[in-house]
Amino acid sequence: MPGIARWRDNLPAELCRNRELEIMLHLRILCRAKNRSTAVLVKPVGSSSLCVLKNKYLLHKRGYNSSRENFSKDEHKKYIGCIGVVSILGFYYYYTSNKRRAFAREHEIESHSGQRSSPGEFDSRYKSYTLSEVAKHDNKNVGIWVTYKQGVYDITDFIEKHPGGAGKIIMAAGGSIEPFWMIFSNHNKRDIYDLLESMRIGNISKEEASTAVEGMEDPYANDPQRHKILIINNPKPFNAETPAPLLIESFHTPSDLFYVRNHLPVPDVDPQTYELEIAIEEDTKKVLRLDDIKKYPKHTVSSTIMCAGNRRSEMAKVKAVKGLSWSVGAVGNATWSGAKLCDILNDLNVKEEDYEHIQFEGLDLDPSSTPYGSSIPISKAIDPKGDVILAYEMNGKPLPRDHGFPIRVVVPGVVGARNVKWLGRIIISKHESQSQWQQGDYKGFSPSTDWDTVDFSKSPAIQELPVISAICTPQSGDQVVVQNGKIKVAGYAWSGGGQKIVRVDVTIDGGDTWHTAEFFGQDLSKPGRHWSWTLWQVEIPVKEGDKNVEIWAKAVDSMYNVQPESFKNIWNLRGVLNNAYHRVKIDLK
Amino acid sequence: MPGIARWRDNLPAELCRNRELEIMLHLRILCRAKNRSTAVLVKPVGSSSLCVLKNKYLLHKRGYNSSRENFSKDEHKKYIGCIGVVSILGFYYYYTSNKRRAFAREHEIESHSGQRSSPGEFDSRYKSYTLSEVAKHDNKNVGIWVTYKQGVYDITDFIEKHPGGAGKIIMAAGGSIEPFWMIFSNHNKRDIYDLLESMRIGNISKEEASTAVEGMEDPYANDPQRHKILIINNPKPFNAETPAPLLIESFHTPSDLFYVRNHLPVPDVDPQTYELEIAIEEDTKKVLRLDDIKKYPKHTVSSTIMCAGNRRSEMAKVKAVKGLSWSVGAVGNATWSGAKLCDILNDLNVKEEDYEHIQFEGLDLDPSSTPYGSSIPISKAIDPKGDVILAYEMNGKPLPRDHGFPIRVVVPGVVGARNVKWLGRIIISKHESQSQWQQGDYKGFSPSTDWDTVDFSKSPAIQELPVISAICTPQSGDQVVVQNGKIKVAGYAWSGGGQKIVRVDVTIDGGDTWHTAEFFGQDLSKPGRHWSWTLWQVEIPVKEGDKNVEIWAKAVDSMYNVQPESFKNIWNLRGVLNNAYHRVKIDLK
Repeated sequence: MPGIARWRDNLPAELCRNRELEIMLHLRILCRAKNRSTAVLVKPVGSSSLCVLKNKYLLHKRGYNSSRENFSKDEHKKYIGCIGVVSILGFYYYYTSNKRRAFAREHEIESHSGQRSSPGEFDSRYKSYTLSEVAKHDNKNVGIWVTYKQGVYDITDFIEKHPGGAGKIIMAAGGSIEPFWMIFSNHNKRDIYDLLESMRIGNISKEEASTAVEGMEDPYANDPQRHKILIINNPKPFNAETPAPLLIESFHTPSDLFYVRNHLPVPDVDPQTYELEIAIEEDTKKVLRLDDIKKYPKHTVSSTIMCAGNRRSEMAKVKAVKGLSWSVGAVGNATWSGAKLCDILNDLNVKEEDYEHIQFEGLDLDPSSTPYGSSIPISKAIDPKGDVILAYEMNGKPLPRDHGFPIRVVVPGVVGARNVKWLGRIIISKHESQSQWQQGDYKGFSPSTDWDTVDFSKSPAIQELPVISAICTPQSGDQVVVQNGKIKVAGYAWSGGGQKIVRVDVTIDGGDTWHTAEFFGQDLSKPGRHWSWTLWQVEIPVKEGDKNVEIWAKAVDSMYNVQPESFKNIWNLRGVLNNAYHRVKIDLK
Repeated sequence: MPGIARWRDNLPAELCRNRELEIMLHLRILCRAKNRSTAVLVKPVGSSSLCVLKNKYLLHKRGYNSSRENFSKDEHKKYIGCIGVVSILGFYYYYTSNKRRAFAREHEIESHSGQRSSPGEFDSRYKSYTLSEVAKHDNKNVGIWVTYKQGVYDITDFIEKHPGGAGKIIMAAGGSIEPFWMIFSNHNKRDIYDLLESMRIGNISKEEASTAVEGMEDPYANDPQRHKILIINNPKPFNAETPAPLLIESFHTPSDLFYVRNHLPVPDVDPQTYELEIAIEEDTKKVLRLDDIKKYPKHTVSSTIMCAGNRRSEMAKVKAVKGLSWSVGAVGNATWSGAKLCDILNDLNVKEEDYEHIQFEGLDLDPSSTPYGSSIPISKAIDPKGDVILAYEMNGKPLPRDHGFPIRVVVPGVVGARNVKWLGRIIISKHESQSQWQQGDYKGFSPSTDWDTVDFSKSPAIQELPVISAICTPQSGDQVVVQNGKIKVAGYAWSGGGQKIVRVDVTIDGGDTWHTAEFFGQDLSKPGRHWSWTLWQVEIPVKEGDKNVEIWAKAVDSMYNVQPESFKNIWNLRGVLNNAYHRVKIDLK
């Protein structure tokens, strides 16, 4: 296992002083594998595949030591080795496939100088190093270096500014970042290549460069098939939105048209062996199999789920932001059926006053084998009227893999990031989730906070989302036929926290005249439980002779909160909470 | 009793077809007087005063028929007659007092033509009528006329546009509006006089005009003394705000500096005889005396109360609105102690699913003897975490009369209008309060809704208020000394529904640079129960040589809702929900 050995040798010294050490030393992999489901990161290749090994390993750990399932020491080592290789180093597949080349072409846009350049290629202006020399630079005292293809980069000063968190990027210290970028392929972008090249200090040889991702396969190879109509923002991890006009075609978005926001490869969970662990702080209190969860009373809730970055592309026009360039379609409304989380908490005799947060961990694992995670306040989780459910159905059918099969948490009124998919563990705690996605992402900041000044500990994690609306038809640039002197405008509006939409106003004259929209789909639940969106439409008279107009829409919720007018004053470096007026310029025919 | 006779004779025909009839026929006065406290509208004048009569009447009705308290038929008639005269017709005092003249001078500003005119004075351009002729015009079929001093006015087309509601103004049909304007003295304004004169059709004689308010006294004569530092917006009913710089001097506003928003004269309630009636729909289920309420566990909650019209003066700059011209001081924060409403509802075995609303009625009565009233959703009232209390203490001492002595409802996170003072009745119901203040006021509308198009039934009653902030120091027009190149800015921020303030941003360069404020007072309650405001301050560097700057402030709450930028697009005809950025222009020294 040369890959593992090399990776272990190159373990950055910095990591020895923090929790990441455990991860890197496999301890966490071993610990976490206990009592967990058979989530598989990659498709098996060959007879002694990781999948088979993992299944055998889990059965072994759970005491299923039949002769057929016996798990030898060799196999154990092999399994752990494979997990290491797979989840820490990834595969080379992506870089060599046609898809990779096509994607790279798409992102290989012109640099500031107007010249195309190929990131990481040999550059004679720089000194040459060996991998061993690079490996020594794995802490702040001597500087933190990484390689990308043949390039060597000093990222010491960048560590704290890394949008994905310092804890993630430091894992690559003294080695190649390529395996990590195979998982987090949103790095494969021109601006990130440019940023990397700005930190360039040297070269390594072609031979040494080729060892970085030797023998790796695409961790996304086992992702499910998706509907072709989804607009892909990032293929790996898969992130795609619903075309705007389709959103308002039905009150409940068909599951295969529902936006997908994945942070990692989709786990392939076997429902037969699936287990949900429920812990109080560090102690596991209960393990529920799928059938156990289905024994609880089945509740169905109609709820909109929205990504914090929905409409980010509009905010990015003010100033660049880090994140996927969503249009208005990173949102959908569906029915979700499952067990109420409060029922499960009551079974465990959990009292609201004894804890603060309910943490969720997914079965989707990052390169350090850390699961996707987040948390919500216990007050939301334990309140029967909070309607938090462990859903096994979406729109009346078993959850699709992309939406969390077999179980996802649905936290109505709360940002999508807390609606954890492929739920593997629930932790009842006095503390918030310490995951990157809770602590170092999905937070709002002042427009004057930049990557030099940001302190993620100073802002609260986004939970309930503010009031928002969007125009779905027409779309920007459309040629719209004026009928009887009017144009038709339609869209959605929604507010977090169960607030009802009470009014949507639309203008085509810069706010001199506002036309109040009619609702053709609305959640009629009791106050504070309007989890679903409102669909609206309005006919607006246009002046004869007008060749084009700009349509603005704004919604008002039952707290009479309104949308801000423009993005300038709500701009934030991560491009979340994009709820300014939606403005759509169209041509009239 | 010629006054009563005349008033009864002039009863408008329209009223015979609706609920107002009961009011006008005294039935409601009789019914409501049962089981109610000894609220007194006016100070007794002479030995057979209304106060003495009312006390005797109530004791009589409750069966305290001692010889000393015996209530003769004559006295009964006298009492009812007096109630009629007092509560329906008012007194002439106000119009003849020095105070009245001073106030009229203040409001008697120049009309559009640039000439001063005296409303209601004889105008030879118009035909003369007798009071009997006017009295016949009391319904839409023949037209609705009213008199004001010597003026006769046809208000038929105005009825539905009356900001105070059609139900109120119709009470004056066929007679004088003067008695009503004595109670609702906010009508004593130039723009309202102008509006009235625009409907002028005739004159009555000086002699007949003088009978309108014959023998009346000031219904506000028994209002309490107030602290002189309060800024009075309207003296009768008393409406006054705290000077902005004082607001941020302490986290809890001293009671005598707390803004006062009265809709009617302040009742003078005897705590010994005070009774709170609790009804389910029409049936009284329980009557609690003050001591009974104090037997419930005493809860103290720190809560901000804010008027829906706070900062209305800024919205009015966009376009005129109807309402008191509040600056930023129609808000305060105090501790409130009393019984939890949920405890009382639980005692009555009230189940949330059986009802929808909890209605509150005050002991402050309008000219038709209708109490001030409003309602909140039962979900808020019955939730122990909603912290709704029947408060008998404010800042640790018995409630001052202006703030609802002996009992006011405190509904944390909800607009001031629902925090009913001088609480007389609680009604558990399937229906919202039908009061003017719930149905025909305190609602938001589109900026394009005017008094011709408004339909109050189309908007929900304001409950939880949206996020807001205000700069308290410096104030507009201040000369501010620059110290060490900086200016200090401080203010408050708050959001309804228990949302926490998570950030306040301040700019002096039109939003190019935002400075995040520090908090020096904040509610540290659990999520969703941040009822108190946040006090903030920030030091902002100014450019050398700058002579003046405009400071903007905006707050963000824990749902990441933000304030709208400007008033234009949130303008509404009643001038409520004024939560746009606060902008203050100052000079630098």
